[in-house]
Amino acid sequence: MANTFNKKYTYQPINKPNLKELYNGITTGNKTVLSQAITLLESNNQKDRELIYQLIKKLPSPSKKTIRIGITGSPGVGKSTFIESIGSFLCKKDYKVAVLAIDPSSGKTGGSILGDKTRMENLSTMENAFIRPTPSKGQLGGVAQKSHEAILLCEMAGFEIILIETVGVGQSETHVKELVDFFLLLMLAGAGDELQGIKRGIMELADTILITKSDEGNELNAKKAKLNYQNALHLFPANENNWMPKVLTCSSLENRGINQVWEVIQDFEKKVTENGWIKKNRSSQNRFWFHQTLQNFIKNKFYTSPSIKNKLEELEELVSIGNIDPINAAKELFDLILK
Amino acid sequence: MANTFNKKYTYQPINKPNLKELYNGITTGNKTVLSQAITLLESNNQKDRELIYQLIKKLPSPSKKTIRIGITGSPGVGKSTFIESIGSFLCKKDYKVAVLAIDPSSGKTGGSILGDKTRMENLSTMENAFIRPTPSKGQLGGVAQKSHEAILLCEMAGFEIILIETVGVGQSETHVKELVDFFLLLMLAGAGDELQGIKRGIMELADTILITKSDEGNELNAKKAKLNYQNALHLFPANENNWMPKVLTCSSLENRGINQVWEVIQDFEKKVTENGWIKKNRSSQNRFWFHQTLQNFIKNKFYTSPSIKNKLEELEELVSIGNIDPINAAKELFDLILK
Repeated sequence: MANTFNKKYTYQPINKPNLKELYNGITTGNKTVLSQAITLLESNNQKDRELIYQLIKKLPSPSKKTIRIGITGSPGVGKSTFIESIGSFLCKKDYKVAVLAIDPSSGKTGGSILGDKTRMENLSTMENAFIRPTPSKGQLGGVAQKSHEAILLCEMAGFEIILIETVGVGQSETHVKELVDFFLLLMLAGAGDELQGIKRGIMELADTILITKSDEGNELNAKKAKLNYQNALHLFPANENNWMPKVLTCSSLENRGINQVWEVIQDFEKKVTENGWIKKNRSSQNRFWFHQTLQNFIKNKFYTSPSIKNKLEELEELVSIGNIDPINAAKELFDLILK
Repeated sequence: MANTFNKKYTYQPINKPNLKELYNGITTGNKTVLSQAITLLESNNQKDRELIYQLIKKLPSPSKKTIRIGITGSPGVGKSTFIESIGSFLCKKDYKVAVLAIDPSSGKTGGSILGDKTRMENLSTMENAFIRPTPSKGQLGGVAQKSHEAILLCEMAGFEIILIETVGVGQSETHVKELVDFFLLLMLAGAGDELQGIKRGIMELADTILITKSDEGNELNAKKAKLNYQNALHLFPANENNWMPKVLTCSSLENRGINQVWEVIQDFEKKVTENGWIKKNRSSQNRFWFHQTLQNFIKNKFYTSPSIKNKLEELEELVSIGNIDPINAAKELFDLILK
């Protein structure tokens, strides 16, 4: 308003909404405001983040039941194409679908996830879809934590199905399990080199393995892979949720197998709602993020002064080459922090 | 000395060694002193722990190359019997062998590891063996961290092969990978209920799967299990160390297969020494423990006051039932800490 009243105000950052504007925007499902809120959340400015914490505190809990679905797999397995397919499928069923991306590799692989987003041509034009590329890097505090907060915002804005895309590498992988209800691992038919892109331990965490690119001419390979994974999964320890992981095949290109994936997810949701696991799991995830956030607050407070940061880097190097043991290195830095 | 001079001093705790006694004991491989040092490390008294930190700082690096072997599997799989067998086998080859145990279940399963230790009748009488039961519980800071420090002490006392036994459940499991060079997973022939005791994700972390109890009459089952696991492992992503996990069978009872396990470990050590992984991995583990220890120092400093502790528990409960979001709960506790 101000900039129409007086030219002087034209250069003010008028696109930074206040608490009331954010509240009104989120509660009415305004996608632009949701996007702005997530940007503020990822800001390096503490005031911006605190504004969003206030917002989250004020906002009412989502009125609808939500499901958080993690989707992982090595680069080239077809994550984006699959998300485009299932996202469109769900939007047509009148679900409100949010797509978030986590890139735990922190820029090492060159931001392929961000690039992929622009390829979701169908989904990105749908009224019921909200697509948010990978958060900006370099934040002390971890990419996964920001994603958790972004999920909360999406749900409060009325999105009921949250698809969280992640590359199957890097440290944050174990944290993805703390973000989602259901974990879907995408695999190519014919296990081989493509597995290199996945972190070990991920396969056992999957609630369903989906063999992608079961396109015409490749069905036999996909069937064979399906059988192999089914046999392997029988050897795995049971999941806490008492859900026996499934193996499915799909062709995103030819739009085959997408509805089966959704059926399995619905079946999963029904079972883990009945046996109480979903509630228990969300509780335990909340405790996890509580501790994680607290640790990040502490780190941000104590690790950011230049003298501590320099000493930290110096000690890390000494510890790496074995010139000082980890305990005494930690003690040295801790003594410095206490000063 | 004092207590022979004057009766008054008889009740002094004369069994608590000083820095010099600890130093001399450890450098001469005195097992009693090593045991005392680990006890001091696990002490709730900060002065005791700081004495050991000083000790670790002063002690020279181990003169011999060491290998740290993690051994896990569900209860009843025969971990202790296997350790008894391979430990005795290695002692007879003139290696100095230390056995440490981690019980990540923190007392929930009733301290079975401690009980098992007393059953290592052969190994416990061997001159070259040092056996240390699971550390005491309730320490802020985590059981695995104490184990890392205990490993350092054992190595400085001249033990070159460190066997770290752990139950395959609980949170600390992922930390075990940060303690060891080689990870051995014990499995029973015939995958089924016994898998319940293992945490998901463990199988993919194993450098070798060992089918135990391949005793007379059970060999066919063991062979079948071996084949199944071999097929499954082919589907797994490659390990960072470029080592293709092996599947072996053994009978600890009949002492068969033990030497093959040792051959595989030696082969592994040779390969990962040549490709530089072992050095890289220990560096990265050192950085991990540096950060872990620092975090624990901070926690011990800030979380232990009664008012913080009470508030922490209260907020944890509220977060669990969803009455407050994790971010604002963390912020509330953090504000209290800053006061």
